[in-house]
Amino acid sequence: MAHVNENYLKLPGNYLFATIAKKVEAFSKAHPEANIIRLGIGDVTRPLAPAIIEAMHKAVDEMGKAETFRGYGPEQGYDFLRQAIIDGDYKTRGIDLDIDEVFVGDGAKTDVACIQEIFGSDLKFAVADPVYPVYLDSNVMLGHTGDWNAEKGIYDGVVYLPCTAENGFKAEPPTEDVDIVYLCNPSNPTGTAMSKAELENWVKTAKEKKFIIIYDSAYETYITEPDVPHSIFEIEGAKEVAIELRSYSKCAGFTGTRCSYVVVPKACVGYKADGTAVELNPMWNRRQCTFFNGTPYVIQRAAEAYYSPEGQKQCLADVNYYMENAHIIRDGLVAAGFTVYGATNSPYAWVQTPNGMKSWDFFDLLLEKAHVVTTPGSGFGPHGEGYLRLTAFGTKENTIEAVKRIADLKLFK
Amino acid sequence: MAHVNENYLKLPGNYLFATIAKKVEAFSKAHPEANIIRLGIGDVTRPLAPAIIEAMHKAVDEMGKAETFRGYGPEQGYDFLRQAIIDGDYKTRGIDLDIDEVFVGDGAKTDVACIQEIFGSDLKFAVADPVYPVYLDSNVMLGHTGDWNAEKGIYDGVVYLPCTAENGFKAEPPTEDVDIVYLCNPSNPTGTAMSKAELENWVKTAKEKKFIIIYDSAYETYITEPDVPHSIFEIEGAKEVAIELRSYSKCAGFTGTRCSYVVVPKACVGYKADGTAVELNPMWNRRQCTFFNGTPYVIQRAAEAYYSPEGQKQCLADVNYYMENAHIIRDGLVAAGFTVYGATNSPYAWVQTPNGMKSWDFFDLLLEKAHVVTTPGSGFGPHGEGYLRLTAFGTKENTIEAVKRIADLKLFK
Repeated sequence: MAHVNENYLKLPGNYLFATIAKKVEAFSKAHPEANIIRLGIGDVTRPLAPAIIEAMHKAVDEMGKAETFRGYGPEQGYDFLRQAIIDGDYKTRGIDLDIDEVFVGDGAKTDVACIQEIFGSDLKFAVADPVYPVYLDSNVMLGHTGDWNAEKGIYDGVVYLPCTAENGFKAEPPTEDVDIVYLCNPSNPTGTAMSKAELENWVKTAKEKKFIIIYDSAYETYITEPDVPHSIFEIEGAKEVAIELRSYSKCAGFTGTRCSYVVVPKACVGYKADGTAVELNPMWNRRQCTFFNGTPYVIQRAAEAYYSPEGQKQCLADVNYYMENAHIIRDGLVAAGFTVYGATNSPYAWVQTPNGMKSWDFFDLLLEKAHVVTTPGSGFGPHGEGYLRLTAFGTKENTIEAVKRIADLKLFK
Repeated sequence: MAHVNENYLKLPGNYLFATIAKKVEAFSKAHPEANIIRLGIGDVTRPLAPAIIEAMHKAVDEMGKAETFRGYGPEQGYDFLRQAIIDGDYKTRGIDLDIDEVFVGDGAKTDVACIQEIFGSDLKFAVADPVYPVYLDSNVMLGHTGDWNAEKGIYDGVVYLPCTAENGFKAEPPTEDVDIVYLCNPSNPTGTAMSKAELENWVKTAKEKKFIIIYDSAYETYITEPDVPHSIFEIEGAKEVAIELRSYSKCAGFTGTRCSYVVVPKACVGYKADGTAVELNPMWNRRQCTFFNGTPYVIQRAAEAYYSPEGQKQCLADVNYYMENAHIIRDGLVAAGFTVYGATNSPYAWVQTPNGMKSWDFFDLLLEKAHVVTTPGSGFGPHGEGYLRLTAFGTKENTIEAVKRIADLKLFK
């Protein structure tokens, strides 16, 4: 008899963004005249850069001719892209990597959800709170948590690392024994970023306690402060205890184009139950070779073009465009009386709700009164309650208009 | 402390195709003058069809303009492709599907390796023997088997369904209680295909015993005999007990382009430990929404173009080209004295080794004496011993030459 994975049944309600989509759809139906501005989901709006488009056309033409056609590629990604990643993202920051330490994927969501598979089935993990929901949900679904505790809004058996205004929304290393910790830096959703010294403390603790840091640096291109590392491997010794995940979604507008990569250094080890060290690099390699068949050739050529001089220039212009939006949100809402975090090293502004309002109530108010879609902070974990996340990925015009509408509500007068 | 998934350590040696690649590389280095013909791995060689290339260029252009740019798509795939699948692959065969029963993926390898996740962690499964290695390996890695039994060449705890010359290489339903059964029809590697009556028996048994058939029909386009169903859903009642997986790799040359789909009918149910029925469709939906972020827009447009009248005509011409190769292999080797199965409803010929030779020995002999790369049948399971798989995906010229070289060895004289 076919038994289902009952862990799925622990998941309460809908995926955060599905719930938002439903609410927006209902409002839109009831108010078809409303000009809704979406600063909720972190999806980009600028088209792909011309250098990337050109590379894709070229690759498509190659696929149409027998002499240049490509069938199955290496599951780990083509060397041309893996080398471009090493040269473009790591050598420039003084980090040496071997080509077989880099694994090209089809999106950081897939990578971050699946990386847990190389760890033990009785996996104990820690997450920042609030945090990007996939770290948690994917672990729930593979049975690495206890039940949903509706009263507390948490899962039993998970180590939550509170991120609050008091600690600058920066998770501190767990005191409990864990196998892995998910760290998103700069953080989604709070938009805050850890400094070099803070990351050094993380690496030091990970070495002492032998846990692995799953380091999601999807937003590294948005870092503007010199003291914030772009890669965890800028920290000495991090290769022994960290796996880094990157995405082209936010730095090159690939949300609908789908490419990512994972760096698993050869120095990085986990342990068998008997204490023997096991290299994680061949384990992830085996995982990818069995569960994945490579990212499309055309898409890998697109990602490669991101690293060309033209690609870099064009994509950086888009990042700057979004960062200008982030500043418009941050500065505009601060001027209107709000307390705002983030939006300095990240495209996300983390906005405190007025007068202790609940996240979903403020979400509803902004949708109904300002026709602006946001993301309720409580959707990212219990310590997100009392905040909203606003994203800078809209057009400049819409961003200005949305901020004006929110300011015009005069919630602090 | 980070504990690793020790199930990975159960896997003996290398992935089959990696081992072959190493042997070929070593031979090639030692004999740089040898003109090696590869009929081993099932990778296509014909370029993408012009209709598909045209659709990809158009989609790339859309991604380069703000008005037509696409960010995150639905995790389940765009409706334009899901509808094209229903109209092109199912309505034409009298099968009705709802659009949300179809899930677009990035390749059947990913889909088939991950589908197990919606079933219980104490999953018991059956596979044909011999069979495509991913069904088995992926389950080993997620802990659904016992240890590797080197003596027998099997994993403890797995139900193997022997496919032999005696039963026409057609797996018969398991007598043991299992949760799921992987069925590949037409079969990879034997190239044989089950008839409608045989599949009816499978569906009937699955209903009686409440197991789910994971039906991999990656090779359905190669079916030539009228009595072989193209979809399991041609069998009455199959929607209650079957999940079907399809790929564009072999019907449209997408091995390097990556697109697939899974059909999970709403009628298909599994069971909780207490016996309550649970629909599998929302479970796979939840799995995809959390672990996946959709197939690239450009690739989905490419797959859509496969269903256009021009796309169908062009792709069918390629399928016919490969099938001509299959017949060249089958007829040529039969004429040379070999016993050959398959190659009628599939691009694979399943060739008995001469004089009871072991698979790997015959593989080595053909590599060394004929400079032809094949796949040893024993790599697909213990009942594959004594056979080789030859694929029809080369060029016609190379296929003719390879068959001539093998015949010239005069192994039966």
